[in-house]
Amino acid sequence: MELIRIPRIMLETSKQHLSKGKTIGLVPTMGALHEGHLSLIKRAKSENDIVAVSIFVNPIQFGQNEDLDKYPRDTEGDMEKLKSEGVDILFMPEVKTIYPARFSTYITVKDLSDRLCGAFRPGHFSGVATVVCKLFNIVMPTRAYFGQKDFQQTAVIKRTAEDLNMNVEIVVCPTMRESDGLAMSSRNAYLSHGERKAASVIYKALKTSSELIKAGNVNTADIQKHMHDMLKAEPLISETQYAGVYDADALDEINEFKKQNLIAIAVKIGSTRLIDNMLVEF
Amino acid sequence: MELIRIPRIMLETSKQHLSKGKTIGLVPTMGALHEGHLSLIKRAKSENDIVAVSIFVNPIQFGQNEDLDKYPRDTEGDMEKLKSEGVDILFMPEVKTIYPARFSTYITVKDLSDRLCGAFRPGHFSGVATVVCKLFNIVMPTRAYFGQKDFQQTAVIKRTAEDLNMNVEIVVCPTMRESDGLAMSSRNAYLSHGERKAASVIYKALKTSSELIKAGNVNTADIQKHMHDMLKAEPLISETQYAGVYDADALDEINEFKKQNLIAIAVKIGSTRLIDNMLVEF
Repeated sequence: MELIRIPRIMLETSKQHLSKGKTIGLVPTMGALHEGHLSLIKRAKSENDIVAVSIFVNPIQFGQNEDLDKYPRDTEGDMEKLKSEGVDILFMPEVKTIYPARFSTYITVKDLSDRLCGAFRPGHFSGVATVVCKLFNIVMPTRAYFGQKDFQQTAVIKRTAEDLNMNVEIVVCPTMRESDGLAMSSRNAYLSHGERKAASVIYKALKTSSELIKAGNVNTADIQKHMHDMLKAEPLISETQYAGVYDADALDEINEFKKQNLIAIAVKIGSTRLIDNMLVEF
Repeated sequence: MELIRIPRIMLETSKQHLSKGKTIGLVPTMGALHEGHLSLIKRAKSENDIVAVSIFVNPIQFGQNEDLDKYPRDTEGDMEKLKSEGVDILFMPEVKTIYPARFSTYITVKDLSDRLCGAFRPGHFSGVATVVCKLFNIVMPTRAYFGQKDFQQTAVIKRTAEDLNMNVEIVVCPTMRESDGLAMSSRNAYLSHGERKAASVIYKALKTSSELIKAGNVNTADIQKHMHDMLKAEPLISETQYAGVYDADALDEINEFKKQNLIAIAVKIGSTRLIDNMLVEF
């Protein structure tokens, strides 16, 4: 596995592969790799000649009171996992290389960025869109892989890529889950034993909602109430930021089911913020 | 000359040229071509294997009360000029192709965009940065050519390209001038005979300022007063939006001369807005 830290060298490396007609799959990550990331890497390996993984904890997608400083980092463990998966290139730039002092350009996706998580994390999706655009221009991937767990992120990135005519295919892969259904996330490491047990209620609320919707005879308000009731019944949930039924494209709340419906939840357990979602299609 | 209207076809055409090791020079324009544009094309031809010119009157860089609707258009005349210059590709997309209904992604360059013209044209440079990013992704130029007349535009585009790691060299070419010094601009066509004669005061104010600075014994306040006095003495100038001495990188007003100084003016003559600038270097 080749470790590259300098954007210019990453670009030259990609150009060389592309000039030989090779395809490049990029899996952008913030490190602290888990099975969710590894599933993206496996998919990328199956579809591309070269797989590049980036590890970069992107400061501009964290709010002032968020967890940038304590975000889990495990470079050695990550590198072992990437080698095991047969990753070709690890791109791990420094913050000052990606954001030099004069940096002042930001990408904003209107509307999509303000909903759901965006309402609780102002600037977050602008930070995501900006760094992903930079990574795409540095790595020049044929395809880039993201997990459905961060559904709104995938929507924002797809819109950015389409709107800015970026030459990359965005591939969204299924959410990987622990045995009790909890969506895998680097932030699960923040949870105490009791919190970790409590966290499975998120999946249960989504799963039962999905089943209720498919069984019929419920409306979106029923589902919203069902989810909120289940979350409220778990005393370790300190805040429910949102729980409801949303348009899978526009991400706005809907009052009637459509062909494709997003059910999504964001809660805080203690100080740890967790999100999850499912698509329910008719 | 190949006329291309569809971004996907433009991209495929560029990819074919690039795969053969050819370089592509792009001259982005809004049409109504004059000698200023043609000088960019000549420079692009001298430095690249393939020259592409885009003509696209970009609606999102016009404010609500600006001249989008009356902006001069002369497609047939433009095409004749481009053929005469030996341009290889004319990329002339439709507005609905560049901005489909769902379009919602904007690039913003902080600080640089708010100064000088930006203070009078909110959103303008975001519109410029966004369309230029799109054009770069569609045409994949090796180099892109812009005129120094739109100095702030070149600064914003250079910053966007650097900040977003875009793989293109930005080439800034000298301002082309009429015989009386007036900077060439498609908007000069708006001027009546009397306004056209009056407009040369802009160049004269810059030229005399440049000479005063180089002669020494003046400070930036003297120069600012000199420019304002000259502009005020021309009765057809209806508004002086700015006239002063600025840092050539940050574009903020400066109180002491530096190694590189930008002197710049924006005025209205009747309802026509005109800008011009010079660099004064020590």
